[in-house]
Amino acid sequence: MDLKAILEEAQAFLEPQLGTGRVADYIPALARVDPRKFGIAAVDLEGRVTAVGDAHDPFSIQSISKVFTLTLALNRLDDDLWERVGREPSGSPFNSIVQLEREHGIPRNPFINAGALAVSDVVLGKRSAAAAVEEITGFIRRLSQDQTIEVDREVALSERETGFRNASLANFMKGFRNLENPVEEVLEVYFRQCAIAMSCAQLARAALFLAAGGRDPVTGQEIVSEKRARRINALMLTCGHYDASGDFAFRVGLPGKSGVGGGILAVVPNRCAIVVWSPGLNANGNSLVGTLALERLAAKAGWSVFLRG
Amino acid sequence: MDLKAILEEAQAFLEPQLGTGRVADYIPALARVDPRKFGIAAVDLEGRVTAVGDAHDPFSIQSISKVFTLTLALNRLDDDLWERVGREPSGSPFNSIVQLEREHGIPRNPFINAGALAVSDVVLGKRSAAAAVEEITGFIRRLSQDQTIEVDREVALSERETGFRNASLANFMKGFRNLENPVEEVLEVYFRQCAIAMSCAQLARAALFLAAGGRDPVTGQEIVSEKRARRINALMLTCGHYDASGDFAFRVGLPGKSGVGGGILAVVPNRCAIVVWSPGLNANGNSLVGTLALERLAAKAGWSVFLRG
Amino acid sequence: MDLKAILEEAQAFLEPQLGTGRVADYIPALARVDPRKFGIAAVDLEGRVTAVGDAHDPFSIQSISKVFTLTLALNRLDDDLWERVGREPSGSPFNSIVQLEREHGIPRNPFINAGALAVSDVVLGKRSAAAAVEEITGFIRRLSQDQTIEVDREVALSERETGFRNASLANFMKGFRNLENPVEEVLEVYFRQCAIAMSCAQLARAALFLAAGGRDPVTGQEIVSEKRARRINALMLTCGHYDASGDFAFRVGLPGKSGVGGGILAVVPNRCAIVVWSPGLNANGNSLVGTLALERLAAKAGWSVFLRG
Amino acid sequence: MDLKAILEEAQAFLEPQLGTGRVADYIPALARVDPRKFGIAAVDLEGRVTAVGDAHDPFSIQSISKVFTLTLALNRLDDDLWERVGREPSGSPFNSIVQLEREHGIPRNPFINAGALAVSDVVLGKRSAAAAVEEITGFIRRLSQDQTIEVDREVALSERETGFRNASLANFMKGFRNLENPVEEVLEVYFRQCAIAMSCAQLARAALFLAAGGRDPVTGQEIVSEKRARRINALMLTCGHYDASGDFAFRVGLPGKSGVGGGILAVVPNRCAIVVWSPGLNANGNSLVGTLALERLAAKAGWSVFLRG
Repeated sequence: MDLKAILEEAQAFLEPQLGTGRVADYIPALARVDPRKFGIAAVDLEGRVTAVGDAHDPFSIQSISKVFTLTLALNRLDDDLWERVGREPSGSPFNSIVQLEREHGIPRNPFINAGALAVSDVVLGKRSAAAAVEEITGFIRRLSQDQTIEVDREVALSERETGFRNASLANFMKGFRNLENPVEEVLEVYFRQCAIAMSCAQLARAALFLAAGGRDPVTGQEIVSEKRARRINALMLTCGHYDASGDFAFRVGLPGKSGVGGGILAVVPNRCAIVVWSPGLNANGNSLVGTLALERLAAKAGWSVFLRG
Repeated sequence: MDLKAILEEAQAFLEPQLGTGRVADYIPALARVDPRKFGIAAVDLEGRVTAVGDAHDPFSIQSISKVFTLTLALNRLDDDLWERVGREPSGSPFNSIVQLEREHGIPRNPFINAGALAVSDVVLGKRSAAAAVEEITGFIRRLSQDQTIEVDREVALSERETGFRNASLANFMKGFRNLENPVEEVLEVYFRQCAIAMSCAQLARAALFLAAGGRDPVTGQEIVSEKRARRINALMLTCGHYDASGDFAFRVGLPGKSGVGGGILAVVPNRCAIVVWSPGLNANGNSLVGTLALERLAAKAGWSVFLRG
Repeated sequence: MDLKAILEEAQAFLEPQLGTGRVADYIPALARVDPRKFGIAAVDLEGRVTAVGDAHDPFSIQSISKVFTLTLALNRLDDDLWERVGREPSGSPFNSIVQLEREHGIPRNPFINAGALAVSDVVLGKRSAAAAVEEITGFIRRLSQDQTIEVDREVALSERETGFRNASLANFMKGFRNLENPVEEVLEVYFRQCAIAMSCAQLARAALFLAAGGRDPVTGQEIVSEKRARRINALMLTCGHYDASGDFAFRVGLPGKSGVGGGILAVVPNRCAIVVWSPGLNANGNSLVGTLALERLAAKAGWSVFLRG
Repeated sequence: MDLKAILEEAQAFLEPQLGTGRVADYIPALARVDPRKFGIAAVDLEGRVTAVGDAHDPFSIQSISKVFTLTLALNRLDDDLWERVGREPSGSPFNSIVQLEREHGIPRNPFINAGALAVSDVVLGKRSAAAAVEEITGFIRRLSQDQTIEVDREVALSERETGFRNASLANFMKGFRNLENPVEEVLEVYFRQCAIAMSCAQLARAALFLAAGGRDPVTGQEIVSEKRARRINALMLTCGHYDASGDFAFRVGLPGKSGVGGGILAVVPNRCAIVVWSPGLNANGNSLVGTLALERLAAKAGWSVFLRG
């Protein structure tokens, strides 16, 4: 079965379940997304896009952005980043503050909210929030070879107005001196990166370097070292789905990162990057149908980091 | 560099650190192991053993046994096992009971102590502890093609006499009706499986099916389905090193399972099974030098599930 | 209004609620108690008993026994007891083990289960469980001036057969070396003291020394020093109702100790000891109607340690 | 021994320990307080002041203010307040956020920081922070019969600049909709009430109504009902010293409330209100020498709610 056929089979298989799960409704701009939206895009090492469904519709990438800001922060601080954030699964929900108190303001990993706030502080450096966001969007545009990618301003504003839990996490870390910049600036960077709008195809293209040893396989440009690419994949596998990371590894067997907008990015090392989008979420805050689609796809294609043909 | 050369390079590289870490001393039989012991054995898909150092000395496999009892329990209950134990990293030490209270007696995964007790209860079934232990050792003997493997009775006895924390965990689960058998019987199975003595070479041979899609590549016998082999590997990667699983995935990039006796089993899918032994432990209870050796080896050999040549 | 009238008024006031709450059903002997039982007995400093309802029916005193074993342990170890157990409210349910892990096997106070197990270990000393239980029952008989008081053997046996949570706590502390005796012996002492059967009148008489500065006001015998009597009262007030101790202090304003058999002992310093019995429990494991009865009584009688006429 | 003699005896007894403990140093205005300051003032039901040492020096009352804002909030909401905040000891440090996550944004009691923020929100109502602070200071001035009492503006400003932990708590509760007003406004009220400067004598006078059944015994004015006075005392006894409340009840036996400025207010029902001040703190954040002084005083004077002459 070729890749297109595999994606179509998964799409047909999941069709009866479209609309299930609970669309994120903490801000209006997310709540009004059509729950039956569904798209898949895979980009292979030659840069070829295979897509089905709504794979070219932009959606709010939310926490998937954390893969890109982590990449920028590692390129800036290298292993010093690990003094600011850990690299262990948290065993807790994405927005939990319990661990932060037990572990003195050091978040467990870069993909839970607290960890992404620490990463945002690193990317912010000594600049304005606007300059930092400009770097992040510029980086993502370059990776996806698409200059049209933008922050959705309505989403960013709403996030900020309702983001009390993230403000709590940021203030908590600030109290432990694990944020160098003012809380408001860090939150600004965080909320805006989460509000970037991209399609499945754009996202898969942007993450292609992770499937290709750190190098953009089309342009030949090195984004990160081969070692760093492996490590980012490892972090995605162990921590990319919050407190359902073990289950995702068990069922799908690929490094992945989900976002509350309903997107999931998965990396098939040496093969392709793949993004699924379906807005309804499961109890852990990951796309319900998206996870099932990736499980189906990976099984049909024989994709797993744990055994390959 | 061929495999033998890689193992020797790692051995030489780690030589200055032999004896570091803290040897488990909660029972005399473990405490008196020579802290400078060091061995590595890799077994490839043809069954060829490459070994350096003390790779043929038997040591107490301890929690590495959990990989084999999990395999037996899955062969018995299939997915029903997951009603008794989860498959998420715990974010807690190996013997923590906190999570068990928060989650009503269901352990987070089969590799923390509580989870292995639930698995032991499943393997125990309605038989005597002796019969269950006979099945476990028989299974391991068959896998390793070596009928000489035995439970170390001194270790088993000592474990039982000092195993208050495990007795606490077992009673706690029994209180939540997550053990079907009497606590004493379950503990007996647990302590005896942990007291099995094996060498690096024997252990690597026994785990070879996990590198080979569930089938013993030498005998051709199917031990588990290909899907189950992948899933066991996934569990090892996300949960195999307790609260340092993320770090092991980050640094080594292979499914692995450690034991407090100083052994670490790692699986290189489609390549080989490899076991390192060095008794000194780090703060998380995993072999200090063993982890470093695997990090070195994996880097030199280009072994990682996250990117491969 | 005289005391008899106050008790009768409370009885009449609560009559419509008799039978509400949930009778403890973890063992058959408790489960079959008539949920509509209700009694109150007050014993004043002259030893005069005022009683209404089923005040002379024996019931399982359960955790109220902890007041008497604490008294014995303090008489044995004095302030050294506080190296084995704390004196702070736990902020957790009566049988929680979470705090025990966070605080290295030292229970928060003598009235939660873990703390009472440590106290039982102290009372056990180097004797047999039978001898220790003999001392406890002897002490209670002497205090209540009643040689007929006995352990209910059926209850004791049932407790032991189903007491996995307490076995878990005891093994946990044993692992931290906070029990000197074998776990089984400590549990034996614990379960038997909880299975003592007494009536409201007997219990109130036995606790009278706590209302009278440590001295039995009838016999004149000093049971504990005046300072120790105050301190035991303080512990009852801050910790006597598990995670509802604050609420009991707020609503009733008296030192008290509840038991899962439906009894509550309250001390009115310089006035009387009072015991209410009603088997149905609230969500915190304290007698539902009993708490309301004490709230009513205390208000009518103007009894409160926080302001007195 | 008369009261003056008792205070002097305690002062002499503690003299060798003056300067011990750790002065709060999170803001400069507190850090520079002379650690050897020591004062005691008792005010009896006739309004007579007995004072020793620095009993007329103003100091930062900090969390002692929570007694007065709780009083105002209860006068406003009555029992509806308890939907916003609990009345149980927390079993956690004063600024812990763990419990808040476990219990969905409802603080355990009004005296931990989170609880006092909820109370501040209630007092704030729909007014400006300035108006609310004006009410609080006006209330305290009226109670202490002293119009000179003021907020220390330097302290208030510093608190605000460094109050990340409190900002974290407030944002967390806001995320659970347990603050009605903007976070910044609530924090403003909170920080300013903590920055009120008063002497031992002023504070003891202000709290006199709690020793006198809710009525100012000098002016005859009812501040709260007798029942409410009892209840506030109960809350002080079970929760007034954070996670050392049990110890304070055990050693001192009086309702009390401490502040990080080194003050402790204690209530002797039907007798007097008493305030001790000594800046050095113990590990729980309560005045080290102040606690010892109250223990000494209470023992000498025979003051205890748990037994009285």
